Amino acid sequence: MHHSFSLLILSVMLLKVYAGKVLVFPVEGSHWINMKVLIEELHSRGHSIAVVRASNSWTIEEESPYYRSITVNLGRFDADSVSSFSARLLQLRREKNNFWTYLLLQMEVVEQLSKMHQDICNMMTLMFQDKILMNSLLDAKYDLILTDPAFGGGVFLARRLGLPLVLNVRWTDRAEAHFAIAPSPLSYVPVPGTELTDKMTFLQRLYFGPDVDYFSLFQDADIWLMRNDFTFEFPRPTMPNVVYMGGFQCKPSKPLPADLEGFVQSSGEHGVIIMSLGTLFSELPYDIADEIAAAFAQLPQKVIWRYTGPRPATLGNNTLLVDWLPQNDLLGHPKTRVFVAHGGTNGVQEAIYHGVPMVGLPLVFDQPDNLSRMNAKGTAKIVNIATLDRTVFLEALKEVLYEPSYRENMQRLSRLHRDQPMKPLDHAMFWIEYVMRNRGAPHLRTQSFRMSWMAYHSVDVILTLLAIVLIISLMTFSLIRLLCKRILLKNKIKHG
Amino acid sequence: MHHSFSLLILSVMLLKVYAGKVLVFPVEGSHWINMKVLIEELHSRGHSIAVVRASNSWTIEEESPYYRSITVNLGRFDADSVSSFSARLLQLRREKNNFWTYLLLQMEVVEQLSKMHQDICNMMTLMFQDKILMNSLLDAKYDLILTDPAFGGGVFLARRLGLPLVLNVRWTDRAEAHFAIAPSPLSYVPVPGTELTDKMTFLQRLYFGPDVDYFSLFQDADIWLMRNDFTFEFPRPTMPNVVYMGGFQCKPSKPLPADLEGFVQSSGEHGVIIMSLGTLFSELPYDIADEIAAAFAQLPQKVIWRYTGPRPATLGNNTLLVDWLPQNDLLGHPKTRVFVAHGGTNGVQEAIYHGVPMVGLPLVFDQPDNLSRMNAKGTAKIVNIATLDRTVFLEALKEVLYEPSYRENMQRLSRLHRDQPMKPLDHAMFWIEYVMRNRGAPHLRTQSFRMSWMAYHSVDVILTLLAIVLIISLMTFSLIRLLCKRILLKNKIKHG
Repeated sequence: MHHSFSLLILSVMLLKVYAGKVLVFPVEGSHWINMKVLIEELHSRGHSIAVVRASNSWTIEEESPYYRSITVNLGRFDADSVSSFSARLLQLRREKNNFWTYLLLQMEVVEQLSKMHQDICNMMTLMFQDKILMNSLLDAKYDLILTDPAFGGGVFLARRLGLPLVLNVRWTDRAEAHFAIAPSPLSYVPVPGTELTDKMTFLQRLYFGPDVDYFSLFQDADIWLMRNDFTFEFPRPTMPNVVYMGGFQCKPSKPLPADLEGFVQSSGEHGVIIMSLGTLFSELPYDIADEIAAAFAQLPQKVIWRYTGPRPATLGNNTLLVDWLPQNDLLGHPKTRVFVAHGGTNGVQEAIYHGVPMVGLPLVFDQPDNLSRMNAKGTAKIVNIATLDRTVFLEALKEVLYEPSYRENMQRLSRLHRDQPMKPLDHAMFWIEYVMRNRGAPHLRTQSFRMSWMAYHSVDVILTLLAIVLIISLMTFSLIRLLCKRILLKNKIKHG
Repeated sequence: MHHSFSLLILSVMLLKVYAGKVLVFPVEGSHWINMKVLIEELHSRGHSIAVVRASNSWTIEEESPYYRSITVNLGRFDADSVSSFSARLLQLRREKNNFWTYLLLQMEVVEQLSKMHQDICNMMTLMFQDKILMNSLLDAKYDLILTDPAFGGGVFLARRLGLPLVLNVRWTDRAEAHFAIAPSPLSYVPVPGTELTDKMTFLQRLYFGPDVDYFSLFQDADIWLMRNDFTFEFPRPTMPNVVYMGGFQCKPSKPLPADLEGFVQSSGEHGVIIMSLGTLFSELPYDIADEIAAAFAQLPQKVIWRYTGPRPATLGNNTLLVDWLPQNDLLGHPKTRVFVAHGGTNGVQEAIYHGVPMVGLPLVFDQPDNLSRMNAKGTAKIVNIATLDRTVFLEALKEVLYEPSYRENMQRLSRLHRDQPMKPLDHAMFWIEYVMRNRGAPHLRTQSFRMSWMAYHSVDVILTLLAIVLIISLMTFSLIRLLCKRILLKNKIKHG
């Protein structure tokens, strides 16, 4: 056994033939956090990286030891528009939870995503018109473009520069990423945004999928690095060029700072609850924050809550408000009992990695779906922000704290997630370097997207076969009628 | 980088927690050759293996250092029936190559496969009635069943013993393996046995797929170890529990025996041609052998031909007839120029591994499809056995010998095939041990096969939506008619 692994190491080392040049086109916010993980790893493996960022970027640093940045003018969207968008979404989520507010929310999301998409398109148009910039990008002879295709910019750029393309992807602004590439029977692959599972009733399946025209641009990608895996995702069809790297950003926890460790240890046998609603929702409307704080105050656990709004009046002595928390180190701490989160992909993957059950407050994007998956696997309780009060929230916390199945199920997911032939980050690196070594991966891309809708679904074939059956039936019928007539005629002549 | 790989080795070693017990239900012939590769590797990793074999088995040894055999009575099929079947198939293949002989051939294959399937069913019935045997199998507490599901026996046994199931699979007696599990749009996934590629014209797509009812038995399998990969196979939808281990049996070549090495070296700059038609067709009708020998005799290359029939009169001095040849060591020899083969999966994978272009003489089963894939990738020339004579065969040999693209394309496939994150055999071992560690892999199995055909294709949903549209249209129409009538009536009253 040792022998074959030495061989494996040797062959992997031999395959890494040269230092490549990677052009990264990222997306802001939490998407940038996980892209940085890939960039730092690429850098440590000797590749050189350039990152395209907008001049008004609010998360992508201009200076970095890991990459050279290419700052382009543009960006109608900035930190302010994003936080006002988040506030509006939160407001809609809170309004009475019926079908019409759901529809309004979805429309708002679609509208805002379209605006962001338009913003990126404007930025690309300006970039493409800047001949000096485009020539310098061409002259740099990058080996590939690595992009988060949520709004498409990097996909356009790859097409324009004629470069191999690797996607770091969870969703695009039209749908969950799989819908662009793999056959997705809507009967057992739930439509994104519906929070459904892979066991759907007839009524649930009565729902139409998104328009997929926009996807044709994405289907030239060489490799799809998908930010999930099948401990997280329901089993579903996939494609040879899809690499599941869910949890690639996860790592063992490091010791906490002394003061935080002291607070955590003071929880004794009861343990601690961690709460964070991610980068977009670090603030909350005051009345919600007050209900949440009141629920926490009634528990014997200690609570560490990432919250930047005004201090709630109901805040208990057991609750520590912080501007920022070392989420990975806290989730990996043996005293951590529950993770209260909005259900972003990064946080859910970290909870799976560390085996911490969740109470979910889903807000937008893929969050409701992510938490719906955790709920279906018995690892999370979901609280609707529209109906949240101290009683409801306290009940949810108590259920996940004291019903052992939540923890057991999450620990089982954690074991399965870690039980992989390669670490997800190494796997992602292998395929990025594979595309560089082999100048793309066309042999892993399906022919299917070059077909018309008619041909893909064999509609032409089926119609032709039906036509043949029809013609044969008609001919047979005519023949029989003709024969019958003749016989009748003969009989008439005979007997007549 | 070195650090992460040390971690990888450590984690793989930690994961291998105990020596498992594996019950193997193999298929005879070339299928047994590749199953033995898995058995020997499992043995070397400390697992204990038991193999179920029929008392009249002609390839599965009763005594072995690697496994304990469980010999069961039965087997109408033996070495003689297999070789008479092969002879009959060869005869049909040789008859004039029109649609009717193709149909006859396919019918013969289906009939014989059904007989073999029936044979296995009888064997299983007798096994299941043997209470002492069944109790001993239950008492042994195997961790999983590893089976080649070509004829289904091991699949029945796994269901009966309630054990996790791992398939070592290329095809089942109803279709290519993927058709049992992954969505297989017939528009770009060619129907097995048709030798089509993934670029099909309308006329080619006008062909119906096989009946898939039989597959429901297979869909409980935890892991499908597929004996191909995407250097060999066209890109197509796959499933999370399908592991591609194509080429798992391939290994670097060892030095040849001195006499064979001397013969190979005597070829000088011209190099050697290797010919073997596999275990089923080591003999050939005399006239075909004579044509083949005559073609070989006209070449400056040396030829090593695995052939057990009577010596052809036309045999040249450059051609060495052998009963058996070290195929892997010859394919890996730098003097080897062309591999003449029937296109069995094992041989094609070895040719890909060593980068040797092929002249293909496809006979039955998956052979025509395998060679059609190699032909589409520009790595093989196919000769139809029905029209084979010395001229045709010589032309094919010369084309592959002297047109550099064949070799270049095969060397490129070879590079891509070897460029994998893990060796295929290690990958297969990982997933077999994964099923043992986790007592199955239900979270990787799709829900889809538990659905009816109607529900899977959302026919119920579509019909309901159509019905709603129809009802609304009818109601609207009736309403309009009613209104028109009223207005007309009013007008009549007014003006009448």
